[in-house]
Amino acid sequence: MRFLRKKIKESNSKDSIQLEKQRVDSLNNLKIEHDNMNKQLLFVKRPVGEAGDDTWNLVSNQVPEPKEGEILVKQHYISLDPAMRGWMNNTKSYIEPMAIGSVMRAGSVGEVVASNNPKFTVGDFLSGTGGVQQFTVTDGKGYYPVDPRLAPLPTYIGTLGMPGMTAYFGILEIGKIKEGDVVLVSGAAGAVGSIVGQIAKIKGCTVVGIAGGADKCKYVIEELGFDGAIDYKNESVPKRLKELCPKGIDVYFDNVGGDILDIALTRLRMYARVVICGAISQYNNKMAIKGPSNYLSLLVNRATMQGMVVFDWAKRYGEAAQQMGMWMAQGKLKSKEDIYEGIENFPETFSRLFSGDKMGKLVLKVIED
Amino acid sequence: MRFLRKKIKESNSKDSIQLEKQRVDSLNNLKIEHDNMNKQLLFVKRPVGEAGDDTWNLVSNQVPEPKEGEILVKQHYISLDPAMRGWMNNTKSYIEPMAIGSVMRAGSVGEVVASNNPKFTVGDFLSGTGGVQQFTVTDGKGYYPVDPRLAPLPTYIGTLGMPGMTAYFGILEIGKIKEGDVVLVSGAAGAVGSIVGQIAKIKGCTVVGIAGGADKCKYVIEELGFDGAIDYKNESVPKRLKELCPKGIDVYFDNVGGDILDIALTRLRMYARVVICGAISQYNNKMAIKGPSNYLSLLVNRATMQGMVVFDWAKRYGEAAQQMGMWMAQGKLKSKEDIYEGIENFPETFSRLFSGDKMGKLVLKVIED
Repeated sequence: MRFLRKKIKESNSKDSIQLEKQRVDSLNNLKIEHDNMNKQLLFVKRPVGEAGDDTWNLVSNQVPEPKEGEILVKQHYISLDPAMRGWMNNTKSYIEPMAIGSVMRAGSVGEVVASNNPKFTVGDFLSGTGGVQQFTVTDGKGYYPVDPRLAPLPTYIGTLGMPGMTAYFGILEIGKIKEGDVVLVSGAAGAVGSIVGQIAKIKGCTVVGIAGGADKCKYVIEELGFDGAIDYKNESVPKRLKELCPKGIDVYFDNVGGDILDIALTRLRMYARVVICGAISQYNNKMAIKGPSNYLSLLVNRATMQGMVVFDWAKRYGEAAQQMGMWMAQGKLKSKEDIYEGIENFPETFSRLFSGDKMGKLVLKVIED
Repeated sequence: MRFLRKKIKESNSKDSIQLEKQRVDSLNNLKIEHDNMNKQLLFVKRPVGEAGDDTWNLVSNQVPEPKEGEILVKQHYISLDPAMRGWMNNTKSYIEPMAIGSVMRAGSVGEVVASNNPKFTVGDFLSGTGGVQQFTVTDGKGYYPVDPRLAPLPTYIGTLGMPGMTAYFGILEIGKIKEGDVVLVSGAAGAVGSIVGQIAKIKGCTVVGIAGGADKCKYVIEELGFDGAIDYKNESVPKRLKELCPKGIDVYFDNVGGDILDIALTRLRMYARVVICGAISQYNNKMAIKGPSNYLSLLVNRATMQGMVVFDWAKRYGEAAQQMGMWMAQGKLKSKEDIYEGIENFPETFSRLFSGDKMGKLVLKVIED
């Protein structure tokens, strides 16, 4: 199947807040209606390598009725994350593999449109793992309230959602940054990397990002305040890394794996920390993934390489959201979402995660105005 | 050049202590004499791959006279360690590469035979980095006293020397073992691995070793008290690992790298620790070393891979030596040295580190009786 792409806008926080406020105000005066049909994207085939269009099947079903204790959520935005590629594999991981025939798993944000659960009221906005569908019925477990008056809804699946939480706990708790550290981050213009770099700047570090293309490099320096950037598609990463970090790096936050991880390992300083957050360069591999040949740099430099999964920090999400919300309000932390529209455009939008053809957090709007 | 091998004995602690006591008693009544010639092994060619005989050149020079502030040490035993292969490479590491033409660097233990330094008395026994030679002149920096009445001299370059210190701090401080942990150690019959496993047993862990050959496996189980052993030369490591550690491993202490590291990564439990102590399987590589393809297991299992270099713990060597000495006295910790004789046999003995044709700590006796 082929879809037409319809990109709606690259939101920035202020505009979105304004728009969302108007939306919420109008909602207060309107009865929410829907045509009783729920478009759902089913996961129908485990991909080998890149996930092609035949990975999914778009179906339309009756909107389900919430039973006792359940709520019906009308979803506005779906989160697109590299980790979703891993969920498609039938291998042991930090989360159960998706079952064939199930709704494609995804983070989402939406509003309660019917409630048989006293904890939730119609009109509440929630974030959770609602899947790639327009409506979801849930008992509310794993869902948490969000306030569209404080930040635009897409931010709650971006900077104030999983990617932001990953960045926050990854760089502070696993990376253990301190003032004066030299921090290198790959996927620097992405949902996680852009927040990692900005937090490191707030904490007084020197920050260098690695990203694909001159536009992204310009963005992380000029918009996000990074000290330097390396365009891995057009520059020699080893050479530029030597120039930009002549004394080496204290923390490497890795979103990509592969050759870039290997190069970063050659530049570790003593007692350096390598945060393994992801390995997007390897997710579509058909062969065994490439291990870091230079891992003995860990020995030479008494360095640590540690993996992280954001779910472990769930009890502290509130603290992180409060801190990052404050930084956003103070203008110290910028959140950028790249928003596409139409559930039928999910496959094409998903492929942008791996082609790199996007800027900031990738989001799909699935609500039909 | 070709050397005849002359293996003198596989010492065990009790016999050696007895022999050494007799030796020391007799020394007290004898004036130490030497023929004024010092056989030295010079490092003359950086090897590519395995270090061949042409890596070194054996020369004989006048025994040097110690100047003001210096001492002359007559060396008894030389330590042979896998790390020595790394010192031969002209690459940045935790220690300066050896210079061409210098005496081959090696740990050693010997006695002071002349002293122009008030801190040292003739008859003192010392351990330090005396190099592969029969006599060494030094200002004493980096040398520390050892007592041959408490343990046989070879033990001071084994269990009570660098390999023992590496094992002690590696498994306790980097591996952070606690009672009930499942611990896997490679190079299990070697100088470091054998101590790692025994310390883990003392601390109440379940310990499985990986070693080459049925004899070594039998040795670590029957002599050292390991719970299980895998003969990587004759058994399927993945299969046996599943059998012996059905619930996975909490700590992997890696001395070998390569495929075994990769297999161990597939069996990590949550929050597991991987101690990178060495990678003997890779030291003679002519190509880039093999990185661990399964490193993303660190992410899935929130695990840590950390490198260590024993020199960082120098301030606490005393504490470790005291504790391990006590365990040895209590019969809880066994020390085994595999001792060869004759400085001219260094190249052939050194190759045993990599062929695995040895049991326990490899030592070369260079003193001529």
